[in-house]
This record gives sequence, structure tokens and C-alpha cells, in this order.
Amino acid sequence: MKQLSTKVTSNAHGQDSSYFLGWEEYEKNPYDEIKNPNGIIQMGLAENQLCFDLIETWLAKNPDAAGLKKDGQSIFKELALFKTIMAYPSSRSKIVLAAGSTSANETLMFCLAEPGDAFLLPTPYYPGFDRDLKWRTGAEIVPIHCSSSNGFQITESALQQAQKLDLKFVSVMDVLKTRNSRTAKSPNEFMSFTVFQRSRLTRFSRWSNILQRRNGCFGCDKMSSFGLVSSQTQYLLSALLSDKKFTGTYLNENQKRLKIRQNQLVSGLEAAGHLLDTNTFEAELELWKKIVYEVKLNISPGSSCHCTEPGWFRVCFANMSEETLDLAMQRLKEYVESTDSRRLISKSSYERIKSLRKRTVSNWVFRVSWTDRVPDER
Amino acid sequence: MKQLSTKVTSNAHGQDSSYFLGWEEYEKNPYDEIKNPNGIIQMGLAENQLCFDLIETWLAKNPDAAGLKKDGQSIFKELALFKTIMAYPSSRSKIVLAAGSTSANETLMFCLAEPGDAFLLPTPYYPGFDRDLKWRTGAEIVPIHCSSSNGFQITESALQQAQKLDLKFVSVMDVLKTRNSRTAKSPNEFMSFTVFQRSRLTRFSRWSNILQRRNGCFGCDKMSSFGLVSSQTQYLLSALLSDKKFTGTYLNENQKRLKIRQNQLVSGLEAAGHLLDTNTFEAELELWKKIVYEVKLNISPGSSCHCTEPGWFRVCFANMSEETLDLAMQRLKEYVESTDSRRLISKSSYERIKSLRKRTVSNWVFRVSWTDRVPDER
Repeated sequence: MKQLSTKVTSNAHGQDSSYFLGWEEYEKNPYDEIKNPNGIIQMGLAENQLCFDLIETWLAKNPDAAGLKKDGQSIFKELALFKTIMAYPSSRSKIVLAAGSTSANETLMFCLAEPGDAFLLPTPYYPGFDRDLKWRTGAEIVPIHCSSSNGFQITESALQQAQKLDLKFVSVMDVLKTRNSRTAKSPNEFMSFTVFQRSRLTRFSRWSNILQRRNGCFGCDKMSSFGLVSSQTQYLLSALLSDKKFTGTYLNENQKRLKIRQNQLVSGLEAAGHLLDTNTFEAELELWKKIVYEVKLNISPGSSCHCTEPGWFRVCFANMSEETLDLAMQRLKEYVESTDSRRLISKSSYERIKSLRKRTVSNWVFRVSWTDRVPDER
Repeated sequence: MKQLSTKVTSNAHGQDSSYFLGWEEYEKNPYDEIKNPNGIIQMGLAENQLCFDLIETWLAKNPDAAGLKKDGQSIFKELALFKTIMAYPSSRSKIVLAAGSTSANETLMFCLAEPGDAFLLPTPYYPGFDRDLKWRTGAEIVPIHCSSSNGFQITESALQQAQKLDLKFVSVMDVLKTRNSRTAKSPNEFMSFTVFQRSRLTRFSRWSNILQRRNGCFGCDKMSSFGLVSSQTQYLLSALLSDKKFTGTYLNENQKRLKIRQNQLVSGLEAAGHLLDTNTFEAELELWKKIVYEVKLNISPGSSCHCTEPGWFRVCFANMSEETLDLAMQRLKEYVESTDSRRLISKSSYERIKSLRKRTVSNWVFRVSWTDRVPDER
């Protein structure tokens, strides 16, 4: 008897994507400063670890929040009885909690799409979306192909191009269209309301605002029991997010540190220089393999993000220490130098490499490089 | 433009079931000893609250577990970096965590069934399964009709009857078939590995054992990111479940308290007596409405559990204090007495009622009445 569903046995999960392959390699040989200094450095994880000290300090000052207490007294019973599983949270609250952004994204898809329906999504987009949005829901993603010429913003013609496809039904269009407006977020950002991405704790309220503007909670409330958040964690987060003094300090400090780290990355890349042999996806993939297997950095090729221009890479830089980022940049520099020294470089090819170098340095996808693009939104 | 999916706008969620309607009524007017003593008492929530004191005592003795600490020192950073979101937990562990039993159940369905595939499930079953297992997965449930004559065990003929239906594909058969064996759990119990239901903390290990016996984790690991459990909560649960002395005491004490509470319920029902006017589902529904709206107890009619015999009810009794259960029984008694006194009872109808009473008292579905049936499994 056939035991497993097509869903789980097929490749629709997307695990054959180079994005996931990079992760697999990292898993086999993860870098550790002490235990495995020659391991692969994880630059594929969009997780901001730059302000842990601020949270640690806050936790030390507010032991009740994590300790299931209020004014020093246990409120375990109260929290245990706090019902998040209500079949009908009804209209009392327009906020629906989800067990992670993947769960939130998928819930939204289930509410908005029939299987086979398609969503427009501007490229490059997070490779995990092929799994998170499509896999179990049966929804499709139709890419809106954006280009580096305007900083990957959606253009009217790109939108029309995507719309020309034979789509059964297109949704979230109104959300997507807001991407160009000043106050709105791209759907990627809108849908993944993590506190790290673009480092906006306030995104949470925007998210709920956007949900409210439409049909209540999209029906998400009916689905909330599929991804519950423990009342223990809700209690902690609620206390943390309610502390306006803390969140203000956190956001400011986080912005500063991200900017410093971003500069560190950019300088490192400029110092390393780099080369893409030809301006093709084949060359991009070749280079990516070398970076993963030889340089030992887990980054993701732009092709895994459905980018239509070769030579872009997704590089995360806020999930490690300053020293580790320095090491990553050092490895890259050494790799380029050793590659260069092995070459017999004619004048003309040198010039070609130099120009490519200039180009590809700017071709890294800076996942958190928002400060340059939308300074007014800080 | 159509904004919401058929899934979310249709009734497939099952919210028109009397099970959910009872909850809705409860929500409007919930009983509270002080604030709303005439409100509806919640007897529809299968949640064991009998041993909160034991957990509170344990938490007081083990403040590190909830407080994100180890040996008194903060391990916030370590916990924050603990990766539950790994795309490939691979073979390192055969345990897949889920954000609640609903999430676990649904994940299992996604892994085992194509949309349209059917699962056999013995009746009566938890009304929420129509939502949890079918709604988003597109799987179907085909009931195996069990009867009270043998304590609702699956018989060969009932199984054959269900199998005769024109099913595209039937799965989990091997799991279902084990129901009659001594050491196995019914699929309901097997699939909802909550620490409360049947009060077995050890179910967790059985669950993982069953998963291991089949194809690894069924592919559930690929789906784990759809329902993450915070590392904060994992840390607490891990510490709690690893304390064998505590879990031993908890299980024993919990069994004792459940048994006492069950006896309290049975005595209360016997003292109240009860009557179903006729042995039909119409009468069952009439009675249910009276109990919800007049007696103000949120219980669920057997029909909502797909029971094929009229007169059964699902009654939860471990989610309230002794006093509240007493009040519920008192209300029921008073209701029956007032109904009796309003009747002109002829000798013959009195006898009829008496016999019905005897019958229906035994007709309550004791959700946690396992001690009578499987004493060797304690």
C-alpha cells in the first residue's frame, strides 16, 4: 500500500533548490569558532542576533515576564487557562497569532487562494516562499520580474507582463500594488512580520492594520488552532512589546548596529573584489558552488530567489559576530587572491575582471540593506 | 474581486456543528463563580486542570526552567540560537514537534493523504476532527460505525461496512486495526498526543515510536516549520518531562484525581436521573438544547460526534473545580425535578421514564473514563 502522499514524496517542497542545498552543506559542517573553525559559515539565515544583549538586560530587569509571574507571584494557572484555542475569538480582537511567519504566510494563502490560484510576487523573493506559500495550499506564485535598474521595484510593465499569463485568479493585488508607495511594505515584508527583518518591531501593528482594512481577519481566526503560540511565550512577548521605552531603545540601537554591520560587509566585499566568469546563470551557479564548498560560506544564488539577472547573491550578515563576519570576508579575499594568482592575466582579461568585479560587488543581495533605500521609514 | 477562498467562506470548517454552537453559547455567557454564577458551565473542553498545583510546585522548585536560565545564569542566547526551524532536521531525531495537537494531526494528514483520500475513523469521534483533519488537507473521514454493545470497539463487520464505500484510497488502516489490541491506542488518542487526554505524559514516546516504525517521520519533519514551538516553551517542557520523579508522581496523582472526579460525575448523573423523550436524534437534539440554554451546561450531543445511537453525550469534567462540577450536577438534578413535577405522570409513562433514565444515565460519553476499560494500561 502506498503510504505517503504525493505532497510529501514529491519535490514540491523545494528541497532541491540551491537555497536548501546550501543549508544541507552547512548542516554537515557548521562553523564554530572553537570547535570547528574551518566549518561553513552560515550566511543564509536572515536572523538578527545583533541585539541579544539588550533583550538579556531587559529579561534580567523583568524576571516575571519569562518566569510566568506577576508582581513576583506565580500566574501559571491564569496563563494555563488563557484560551488561545477558542473556536470563535470572533470580533473581540483582530489580531491572529501564528506559530512563526511560515505558519502566518500559509494561513493567509489558505484564506485567500483556491488550489491552483496564483499570487503575483516580485523577484527576487525569499526561496522558502515556494514551500511556505505553495506547497500545502496548492496556490501558485507568478513572479513579477523586477530588475536592478530601478532597485528591484515593481514597474507597471513588469506587472502587466505577469498578469498576461493565463491565471485562474489573482489575489493580493492591492497589497502588492502598495509596494511602491512610501508607507507600505513589500509583500515579502508584509507577510513575514518578523521582528528581525528590517528590524521593525512595529510591523506587528501594521500587519494587524492591514488585516483589519480587509475582511476582518481574512478568516484567519478560524485557522488559528493550526499553529498555536504557547501562552507562556505570548506572555513574555506581550510584556516585552508593551515596554515602549525598551522597544524605542531597541529599534534605534538595532538600526545603528545593522548599519555598522552592513558597512563591514560592503567594505569586506570591496576589499575582496570578486569575479563572475561570464554573465550567465551557469557562471553564477559555478561561483556559488565554489563559495559554499571551497570558501565555506553558505550564501544563496540569486537564481534560487528567482532573480532574472545573473550574478546576484543573497547574503545574511546579522546572524553572526563581528569576528565571524570578518573571517568570512577574509576567506573570500583569500579565495579571490589565490584564484587571481593562479591565472595568467592578460591586460585585456584583467580589465574585464576589474569591470566585472566592480559590477558583482554591487550585486550582492543585501537582505537588510533597507537603510540606504528608505531612510525616511526608520 | 472575490477576496476569500472557498475554504474559509464555506461551512467545511464545521462551525455549524452543534459542538461549535454549544461553544458559541458558552462564549456569550461563560460561568464564573463570582462574576457570573448563572452563566454556562463549560463541559465541552477536554482539558485536565486537576493537577495544576503539582506543576506550580514544580515550577517554584525549578525556577530556571521557566526563567530561561541554567544554574541561575541566563541562557537566553543559547535558547534563541537553538534552531527548531532547520530545513533538514534529517535523521538526528525522529521527534517532530508541533504547535498543538491540531497542528500535529493536520501535518499527519498532509503526509499521508492526497486531497480526496479517505481515512477510516471509529465513531463516536471528537467533532473537531472534521475541521482538524479534513478542512485544509482535503482529506475525507469515513466513519467506522461502532456501537455501545461492545463499548464502541471496532468490529470486523463494521470495518468491512466502511470499506465497502467507494473509497479512492484508504490509509492509516494498520494504525486503526491496532485499536483492539491491548497496547495500542485508538487513532483519536494516538493522533492527539496531548498530556491531558487520558492523562499519559508517556504518550509522547509512544507517538514517536509509532512514527519511527513507519517511514521515518512520515515526512513530518519537512512540515515542522508550519507550526513551530518556541524554544522557550521547549526548554520548559523538556525540563519538566525529563524529571522522572515528577512525571511519575504526576501520573499517579492525576489518575487518582481523575477517578475521583469521574465518580463525582457519575454519582451526580445518577442522582439527577434524566430523560430522553424518545430514542431518536431529534429528541437528543431537543434535550441538548435544553441542557445548553436552560440548564446552562455546554455539553455536546453524540450526533456531533457522529455517534449512530441517539442519547449519547460528550461531557468533559476535568476542566473545572469540584465545586463547579457539583453545581453542574445540582443544576441538572433541579432541571429534571422541575420537568418531572410539571408532568402528569401516568403509571405506564413513569415506568417508561424510569427505564429510559436508567438507560440514558449510562449513555454519557465519558471522555476520560479509561480507568474502567483499560485498568492494565495505567
